[in-house]
Amino acid sequence: MINFDALFKLSYGMYVVSSGNRQAGNAYISNTVFQVTANPPQVATCCSKDNFTLGIIQQTKAFAVSVLHQQTSSELFGRLGYKSGKDFNKFEGIRLKYGESGLPIIMEDAIAALEFEVVQSIDLGTHIMFIGQLIHSELFDNDKEPMTYAFYREVKKGAAPKNAPTFQEKTIAVKENIVSESKRYQCLACDYIYDDAENEIKFVDLPDDWECPLCGSPKSIFVEIQ
Amino acid sequence: MINFDALFKLSYGMYVVSSGNRQAGNAYISNTVFQVTANPPQVATCCSKDNFTLGIIQQTKAFAVSVLHQQTSSELFGRLGYKSGKDFNKFEGIRLKYGESGLPIIMEDAIAALEFEVVQSIDLGTHIMFIGQLIHSELFDNDKEPMTYAFYREVKKGAAPKNAPTFQEKTIAVKENIVSESKRYQCLACDYIYDDAENEIKFVDLPDDWECPLCGSPKSIFVEIQ
Repeated sequence: MINFDALFKLSYGMYVVSSGNRQAGNAYISNTVFQVTANPPQVATCCSKDNFTLGIIQQTKAFAVSVLHQQTSSELFGRLGYKSGKDFNKFEGIRLKYGESGLPIIMEDAIAALEFEVVQSIDLGTHIMFIGQLIHSELFDNDKEPMTYAFYREVKKGAAPKNAPTFQEKTIAVKENIVSESKRYQCLACDYIYDDAENEIKFVDLPDDWECPLCGSPKSIFVEIQ
Repeated sequence: MINFDALFKLSYGMYVVSSGNRQAGNAYISNTVFQVTANPPQVATCCSKDNFTLGIIQQTKAFAVSVLHQQTSSELFGRLGYKSGKDFNKFEGIRLKYGESGLPIIMEDAIAALEFEVVQSIDLGTHIMFIGQLIHSELFDNDKEPMTYAFYREVKKGAAPKNAPTFQEKTIAVKENIVSESKRYQCLACDYIYDDAENEIKFVDLPDDWECPLCGSPKSIFVEIQ
């Protein structure tokens, strides 16, 4: 028997993984960046085969990781986590720099940045795991707390984007068949749930220009759920 | 330039990884267990080539993971994290059970347990990374918080055992050349530091049967550090 809630007890941080060069690049939100050896310092990170950045990492043979702090804006998650770089320039208007390796590094809400050279690629089915050897790293802010995935889920009410290793089908989120006067609505872009019972204003009474607090999608893409 | 403090901003949980069968088994503390795909559910975990459990996982082709909660006793870390199963029966007197797969599962301080079949092994130099496919999982306690590595380091004052992927040489811990009346002493078994300045009783005045609060080693193995 498999209890999927047990998997939710594993702990993760929240990062931006970026790759490319000054001409073209992309970035996405990841909770899967782990140090795997100390000598030399190597990390592992997983990238979905559906992810636009995958091909860029494979071509660049390098990637950068920005460590996000707890006060990271919902807009950053909306922009980098729930939209695809295929049809959207994620870098426009975002604070970034180019690292020693030439990699684009997202500076927005970052407390540390690390640059890696890809030394191994492992096929895991739906995802590719890249093993990266550390070539450069910087600490920008030692006072702010790194954001954990638990904090993101509990405090920011964030759900995993569909390409994340920890994604679970919507049915999991709506499996509890709550019988109540108040209604619940879910954002189709990012799975954020607006629960009437937890808010002073009912969803139907929100203004038309109200936007998803997590990813900034319009009110119109919310659907009522059980 | 590499700033190693940037690596410390990555987030991890704290786990026991165990393997073997009813006749023989072993377990160790790990901060490196993370989900890498959702379909099928797979995790990755890293095991040092110096670790006694490595050969047992390779023989069993399976491993179990117990997720530890925040109130996990220092004794458990001392017993499973800083001693080797080569010369010590780690299971004696510890609460464990045998899972559906026959694997030994540490129940002490565990809020969830997961059993995995090894589907890939990746050589990372000093460590082997095992990719495990989830075959069974249980949630014992949904109320207690999982322990994170940050909590372990900050609140429990824990240092990484030398086989951990996040280990750093003692020189890192003692690089700050503090000039002060009070002295500092370090446990050679687990790197715990007793700082006179942070304690009411000076180290030299502690009774002879005083033990390391982290790993339970005797006072006699502490050394004075800068």
